[in-house]
Amino acid sequence: MIDMTSAIDRPLDELRGYRPKLDVPSDLAEFWSGTLAQARSYALDATFTPVESALRLVDVFDVRFAGYAGQPIAGWLVLPRQRSGPLPCIVQYVGYGGGRGLPHQALTWAAFGYAHFVMDTRGQGSQWSTGVTPDVPPAGATPHVPGFLTLGLPDRDNYYYRRVYTDAVRAIEAAASHPAVDTDRIVSCGGSQGGGLALAAGALADGVAAVLADVPFLCHFRRSAELAVDGPYPELVQWCHTHRQLADRAFEALAYFDGAVLAQQARPPALFSVAMRDPICPPSSVFAAYNHYAGDADISVWEWNEHEGGGEDQILDQIQWLATHHLAAPQ
Amino acid sequence: MIDMTSAIDRPLDELRGYRPKLDVPSDLAEFWSGTLAQARSYALDATFTPVESALRLVDVFDVRFAGYAGQPIAGWLVLPRQRSGPLPCIVQYVGYGGGRGLPHQALTWAAFGYAHFVMDTRGQGSQWSTGVTPDVPPAGATPHVPGFLTLGLPDRDNYYYRRVYTDAVRAIEAAASHPAVDTDRIVSCGGSQGGGLALAAGALADGVAAVLADVPFLCHFRRSAELAVDGPYPELVQWCHTHRQLADRAFEALAYFDGAVLAQQARPPALFSVAMRDPICPPSSVFAAYNHYAGDADISVWEWNEHEGGGEDQILDQIQWLATHHLAAPQ
Amino acid sequence: MIDMTSAIDRPLDELRGYRPKLDVPSDLAEFWSGTLAQARSYALDATFTPVESALRLVDVFDVRFAGYAGQPIAGWLVLPRQRSGPLPCIVQYVGYGGGRGLPHQALTWAAFGYAHFVMDTRGQGSQWSTGVTPDVPPAGATPHVPGFLTLGLPDRDNYYYRRVYTDAVRAIEAAASHPAVDTDRIVSCGGSQGGGLALAAGALADGVAAVLADVPFLCHFRRSAELAVDGPYPELVQWCHTHRQLADRAFEALAYFDGAVLAQQARPPALFSVAMRDPICPPSSVFAAYNHYAGDADISVWEWNEHEGGGEDQILDQIQWLATHHLAAPQ
Amino acid sequence: MIDMTSAIDRPLDELRGYRPKLDVPSDLAEFWSGTLAQARSYALDATFTPVESALRLVDVFDVRFAGYAGQPIAGWLVLPRQRSGPLPCIVQYVGYGGGRGLPHQALTWAAFGYAHFVMDTRGQGSQWSTGVTPDVPPAGATPHVPGFLTLGLPDRDNYYYRRVYTDAVRAIEAAASHPAVDTDRIVSCGGSQGGGLALAAGALADGVAAVLADVPFLCHFRRSAELAVDGPYPELVQWCHTHRQLADRAFEALAYFDGAVLAQQARPPALFSVAMRDPICPPSSVFAAYNHYAGDADISVWEWNEHEGGGEDQILDQIQWLATHHLAAPQ
Amino acid sequence: MIDMTSAIDRPLDELRGYRPKLDVPSDLAEFWSGTLAQARSYALDATFTPVESALRLVDVFDVRFAGYAGQPIAGWLVLPRQRSGPLPCIVQYVGYGGGRGLPHQALTWAAFGYAHFVMDTRGQGSQWSTGVTPDVPPAGATPHVPGFLTLGLPDRDNYYYRRVYTDAVRAIEAAASHPAVDTDRIVSCGGSQGGGLALAAGALADGVAAVLADVPFLCHFRRSAELAVDGPYPELVQWCHTHRQLADRAFEALAYFDGAVLAQQARPPALFSVAMRDPICPPSSVFAAYNHYAGDADISVWEWNEHEGGGEDQILDQIQWLATHHLAAPQ
Amino acid sequence: MIDMTSAIDRPLDELRGYRPKLDVPSDLAEFWSGTLAQARSYALDATFTPVESALRLVDVFDVRFAGYAGQPIAGWLVLPRQRSGPLPCIVQYVGYGGGRGLPHQALTWAAFGYAHFVMDTRGQGSQWSTGVTPDVPPAGATPHVPGFLTLGLPDRDNYYYRRVYTDAVRAIEAAASHPAVDTDRIVSCGGSQGGGLALAAGALADGVAAVLADVPFLCHFRRSAELAVDGPYPELVQWCHTHRQLADRAFEALAYFDGAVLAQQARPPALFSVAMRDPICPPSSVFAAYNHYAGDADISVWEWNEHEGGGEDQILDQIQWLATHHLAAPQ
Repeated sequence: MIDMTSAIDRPLDELRGYRPKLDVPSDLAEFWSGTLAQARSYALDATFTPVESALRLVDVFDVRFAGYAGQPIAGWLVLPRQRSGPLPCIVQYVGYGGGRGLPHQALTWAAFGYAHFVMDTRGQGSQWSTGVTPDVPPAGATPHVPGFLTLGLPDRDNYYYRRVYTDAVRAIEAAASHPAVDTDRIVSCGGSQGGGLALAAGALADGVAAVLADVPFLCHFRRSAELAVDGPYPELVQWCHTHRQLADRAFEALAYFDGAVLAQQARPPALFSVAMRDPICPPSSVFAAYNHYAGDADISVWEWNEHEGGGEDQILDQIQWLATHHLAAPQ
Repeated sequence: MIDMTSAIDRPLDELRGYRPKLDVPSDLAEFWSGTLAQARSYALDATFTPVESALRLVDVFDVRFAGYAGQPIAGWLVLPRQRSGPLPCIVQYVGYGGGRGLPHQALTWAAFGYAHFVMDTRGQGSQWSTGVTPDVPPAGATPHVPGFLTLGLPDRDNYYYRRVYTDAVRAIEAAASHPAVDTDRIVSCGGSQGGGLALAAGALADGVAAVLADVPFLCHFRRSAELAVDGPYPELVQWCHTHRQLADRAFEALAYFDGAVLAQQARPPALFSVAMRDPICPPSSVFAAYNHYAGDADISVWEWNEHEGGGEDQILDQIQWLATHHLAAPQ
Repeated sequence: MIDMTSAIDRPLDELRGYRPKLDVPSDLAEFWSGTLAQARSYALDATFTPVESALRLVDVFDVRFAGYAGQPIAGWLVLPRQRSGPLPCIVQYVGYGGGRGLPHQALTWAAFGYAHFVMDTRGQGSQWSTGVTPDVPPAGATPHVPGFLTLGLPDRDNYYYRRVYTDAVRAIEAAASHPAVDTDRIVSCGGSQGGGLALAAGALADGVAAVLADVPFLCHFRRSAELAVDGPYPELVQWCHTHRQLADRAFEALAYFDGAVLAQQARPPALFSVAMRDPICPPSSVFAAYNHYAGDADISVWEWNEHEGGGEDQILDQIQWLATHHLAAPQ
Repeated sequence: MIDMTSAIDRPLDELRGYRPKLDVPSDLAEFWSGTLAQARSYALDATFTPVESALRLVDVFDVRFAGYAGQPIAGWLVLPRQRSGPLPCIVQYVGYGGGRGLPHQALTWAAFGYAHFVMDTRGQGSQWSTGVTPDVPPAGATPHVPGFLTLGLPDRDNYYYRRVYTDAVRAIEAAASHPAVDTDRIVSCGGSQGGGLALAAGALADGVAAVLADVPFLCHFRRSAELAVDGPYPELVQWCHTHRQLADRAFEALAYFDGAVLAQQARPPALFSVAMRDPICPPSSVFAAYNHYAGDADISVWEWNEHEGGGEDQILDQIQWLATHHLAAPQ
Repeated sequence: MIDMTSAIDRPLDELRGYRPKLDVPSDLAEFWSGTLAQARSYALDATFTPVESALRLVDVFDVRFAGYAGQPIAGWLVLPRQRSGPLPCIVQYVGYGGGRGLPHQALTWAAFGYAHFVMDTRGQGSQWSTGVTPDVPPAGATPHVPGFLTLGLPDRDNYYYRRVYTDAVRAIEAAASHPAVDTDRIVSCGGSQGGGLALAAGALADGVAAVLADVPFLCHFRRSAELAVDGPYPELVQWCHTHRQLADRAFEALAYFDGAVLAQQARPPALFSVAMRDPICPPSSVFAAYNHYAGDADISVWEWNEHEGGGEDQILDQIQWLATHHLAAPQ
Repeated sequence: MIDMTSAIDRPLDELRGYRPKLDVPSDLAEFWSGTLAQARSYALDATFTPVESALRLVDVFDVRFAGYAGQPIAGWLVLPRQRSGPLPCIVQYVGYGGGRGLPHQALTWAAFGYAHFVMDTRGQGSQWSTGVTPDVPPAGATPHVPGFLTLGLPDRDNYYYRRVYTDAVRAIEAAASHPAVDTDRIVSCGGSQGGGLALAAGALADGVAAVLADVPFLCHFRRSAELAVDGPYPELVQWCHTHRQLADRAFEALAYFDGAVLAQQARPPALFSVAMRDPICPPSSVFAAYNHYAGDADISVWEWNEHEGGGEDQILDQIQWLATHHLAAPQ
């Protein structure tokens, strides 16, 4: 079996300057301001219920808040048990197919001294970590390829990620509503789908102090669909393969959700990471978002990795990068 | 790569007598009578709109009727252009992931002189043939493995196939409402998921004159999940793999939808088919349904085939079997 | 597993102008005129025997005609039962490994009102649809890679496709000999191997009114062998891999059968189709034939498909294209 | 990817006594005596032409002899250059897809002091080692799955291996005709297809002093087709899968060529070998032949090997076994 | 591709009583007492050097201690920063191919209030988590299949796991030497290779209060080699496949290291886990160890999982099981 | 599954001139002169013990000589039994994972009249042919990916191939010490890893008259790691993938062992071979070594082959090339 090799995508030297022309919908701003206004017409209603557990070093809260269309979205808030004063908070979005999981799967950021907010992803959470949040498609779940990437296509308004991106913005607001969180130091964070959502939150939410986007998914859809050989992008290929006559319309709708497009209006400083042999989120699609990013941005390049990217090393890069951006946890 | 071999499941001689003990929910009858009564509380509202096409030998109608919760379900009705008097009608259900497709994909039964009704499957129709019918999950789409088999588990009432089985029953009623259809000679028919639905319609609907169930899916879930190495059953395994604590509850819910359980109350004569090397619908799961079938039943056994089963040869078996059951098309 | 991606072959923009230099044998015309003259030294002897079947909308005839060296070649002729006057006729060639199959596998064109002639392929017809025509290699079946693509290499005169291309030309003549066929409106048609044969018939036969060549095989052999990762071209690679010293001679022989070479002398209008992710017939090989085609030609490009190409959508393109070329079926 | 494991076939303890009931055609003896008589109606015409080469230790001869229907079959005869008096001779048959190759691929037996006769296999010799002998199917090459195992099915008389088995018998006679060969000490030998042919020669030819059959192919066709997951048996499955209605007739024809059937009438002492994880020639099929073998027989069992069986170790077993059967090479 | 299914190994009902006869070397006790005595002839020399890190909730120490032949073995000790009095300690062994990794990869047990000691595995730690400990094979690294399972075979005394098992015993002693550890409450723990080592430590070390062995590797080598289709056991198959003549001797040597054999002399209470679809450590091999275990033992059975077993759910089982065995962490 | 195609690496026309800039360590010469001087501080101590065997045409000797650090390295010397005067000698190095095997696996070169010396590879010899030589890593076997390519990285001095290259040089000296060998006509030879070692011996040893390097491994490590999809280079990728922070240091160390670097100082005439579809040793890495080769060099290009390259045809190229370089065997 052939694995992804560096020969499939462009060489690193080229990618460092890769800044493809993107189709930006003329009403992009209106679309998102309208979408978010609608969501905010519902009370946020963030609740934090303490969870009984055998954990000794952290306090865990079961979260609910009103996401898209006011629907209840779940999450965890994990706080160091020993704490004094508000903490910088990592709002983390989960990778494709997973849910918020169990509390003891979310110990890392708290161990480094941060408040850690994990958003459950609607409808997901049955493939590798458990979730509990249902998705409520307003016009019903139209025919889609198994998975979530094509759910609602080619209709922009009914598209699944319209709901999830809105949830992601509201999650920032929910995190900010907790007294243990320092509202000036909220960081959106995630890998793969989580990285795409972290980017989206950085572009669409207010009050994001920084963005940590690892091997982000949901960027430069057309090129990603052309190159990716694993993960969810092939679902999009399969949809286009079946709905041959609707493929172009699908890409028009996807432009509203393209991380590389949204990057052009994102302002918080950001740390990206990219893996040169990533068969799921091709490096060129990550560089497209990175090179279009409007705020200050850095990138960790992992030459020999696939979709795991920098893994446990990336966390150290992030801890250090956060410190240089005045986002370190208190001693 | 290893293919399915005869060594994986039991040998044919054993399977001919394989009649496993099944868990039958005590309120099975109530569950289904209640479910159907609720659906029938909505008007059927079957409409048949002629479709313009370049086809010369058949007339095609775009169908809509009220399925589960009165939601509109699409379909095609294909009739021989030259016809006189009502025709026996094949109500066909589609395989997993497909939709009703385009009209010229449904020519076979009409060419043999039958009225042919194809039911679109809610939410499906993006993997290999196109569909148009959305699915509207009443409690939202709870976390599920990509695909439809685990959608709503472990909640019996919110389970996806509760809606689809109900649609399937209503499709029989919709077909019966068209003047070109001989209401005494309606046959439920399909392969794989379509075979499972044909069985379900045979057990739950009124007025089914015969059942043609090829390599049926949705039978004997536990054994199928244990053995299948391709197709949708592995989605169920993955769900149980993630939701370890809910697996038993899921199988309890699935018992309400098990084709082998429902077979015990099916009355119309039936022609099954089974393929001995089927990696998707293991032969033992088909024999479980066949050997439990309450009505008269025959089975075509294809020793050297995988999930394609008897393919174009099976159609000839069906044409002949229908003729011996007074269900031949008029000359 | 890696699938075919757009990154393997050249991008679409480049392919639209891709017109590679080809090796054209100096005696190409003589080779084919001699070959066909030899075949025509045998009486065509086309017979059409009515087939008993349960089909109600079409009449089916079992065909035999004299192909290469006068050997009997089988086929089906399927006619709309209701017909008045001669019909335009689709002469279809089958894909690699298949045979003419059963009559009810050939209903589409008749349903659209055409006479439909299916040619069985000598020696093939055991992999996915059944065939009945033996192949009689004049010098015996020399060592070849399992399959038909290398049978007879590197000897041009004993090469398998010399016989099949000749059969394909004679099939046009056989179709023309039936009274229900309008001899001015015979269309060669097929996908994959069938597309290659449709092209060959368009170049070599008299009386072809149009060519429908979907994802054609047998074009630009060297590039195809370099790129294809599935289907029959790898048989050629394996042959060259074993017969290392004969590889160049094999490509010299193949030039006589190259669809891109023959395209340069084809005159009927043609509709091609190509799939950008086709791992069996690489898009550049199809564009090589299309861009070298001497007659008027159009092409349907399917960006997200593999070897299935346009599938059921392509048929609608063809129906429409035929209509604009005065080849519509009568109402 | 799953490899063959010991769990697929039966455990070794059971296999040692595995002696399945076989279908023996009532006219088996007549079939083969008639077939061979017909072949012998042609003069054997064995020729041995010295080959120029850079080899220093052996003399190589290009062989031709009259096989089935008198058709010329090629081979090599390799003799130690230093020799005095006739030598015991190994007549070797080649594995599926290969041909006699180049002379320096056949050095082992000569290095051990034997005359070594390699028979080319008609039509084969393009997959991994080269061959030169064409196959001439008497009734033409009827539709078959790529490969040779289904060529001519279901017609016993036109079946490919009828010709090859006859060639194998004639090869023994050809070897015996060379003055350097000790006619009392001719050994049929081979692995996989070669092992099946060595068995057939041991059963059908006169003057075979011993049989060396490694992991033999062509034994117990039905069980082999049920179990094998690699190699040629799946070709038979594919044929039956397509020609569903002819499968039983095919197995009737194959009974005439079944190594386990022929073993019942073989008289020379034999050394078998079998590999317990062989995905190509399942161990039970080898034990079926071994346990039915009529002459004295031994078997080398390789518990941890796949189709390579005993490889270079098996040769040492053979050298030793031959010595204990008075078939050692002279010092 | 076929995945592991329940059909490959025996059904659960049978496995619950599966207690195969094992070959127990007569000098097993002497072998291990001698081996450990030799190791203990070197001073343990356990050192704990504080590690600088950004972690806020735990203290991390870089460990070194003298393992086999007094060679230095690395590890981490992770302690809750807030602690009072000695803690129960989890001594964890790592899975095949991994090393101790980075400190923030070992937060779970500390978060539950335990001292957590991670032993680095000699020579490993380059496949998925990093290690730093070299392996020093006393007689040189004899020819082996890439990997560690066959290193030193068939020589019992030079076998790789003799060194690692000894390291594992010494790790218990090293953990016990730290003042923060409650020496009466040391638990050996691990999954896969780590589970095998936890078992070995439970059988061979003094002062192990309990054993947590998840999907343990290194049990019932012969059956595991026969069944496993993924992970390290196939390395053993490949070694036997190449060194055909040495295979039996290898299994004799392995008997000294067989977790099912050692289980017969293990006394601490143990919690096992097993996954019914585990292609790496077949369920029967785990049940062999469990059913032979001499101390009190429980087992968590995960019916729908592969080698991940109970994953994050298993940890909760363990936390609860430890509590019922007086091994809970202090509040 | 995708196979290697010509599309992955550069086209042949480009490769013929491909001469990439390489990083040459400034102390390369000192490193190797020091390394070899150290080895030569031990007596060579070459012994040749006759082996009893049933072979009739050759004499076989079991070889031992002192390699790196004076450690004993095994080998075979195979001589034509009939010989007069010293012979040109082929010193062959074995491919990755193999050992010297059994004597009758090494007959080819002797059959062509050469003395044939096969060097066993330390630690290897369990994957496909057996070896007997242990490897003794001076600083212990540091964590490495299973296999030998990463053993000792990133430490140049402790790197596995430092030892093997030294053995390879000493093997030339050992061969020269045997009286049957013509010391002026010693040829280093091998395929894959053996090709890399043949190159290294050509660059580092004295008295190599010619080099035969087939599809050589160990050339242009960075590009090879980027492109190779099979064989050992992916081990290097996996090491870098895990030891992310050490990857650059590893490539610095590898520069001392890069066949393309060493080629720049090699003087004997050389015959390379390369396969255009080689997924293990990418063609560009072979051309890098070939185009940098300082001595006279030729190359056999096999356009349609994978890692088997020219196989049995390449041997004929070599026999002929040796003859034109005054290295023919005596008649």
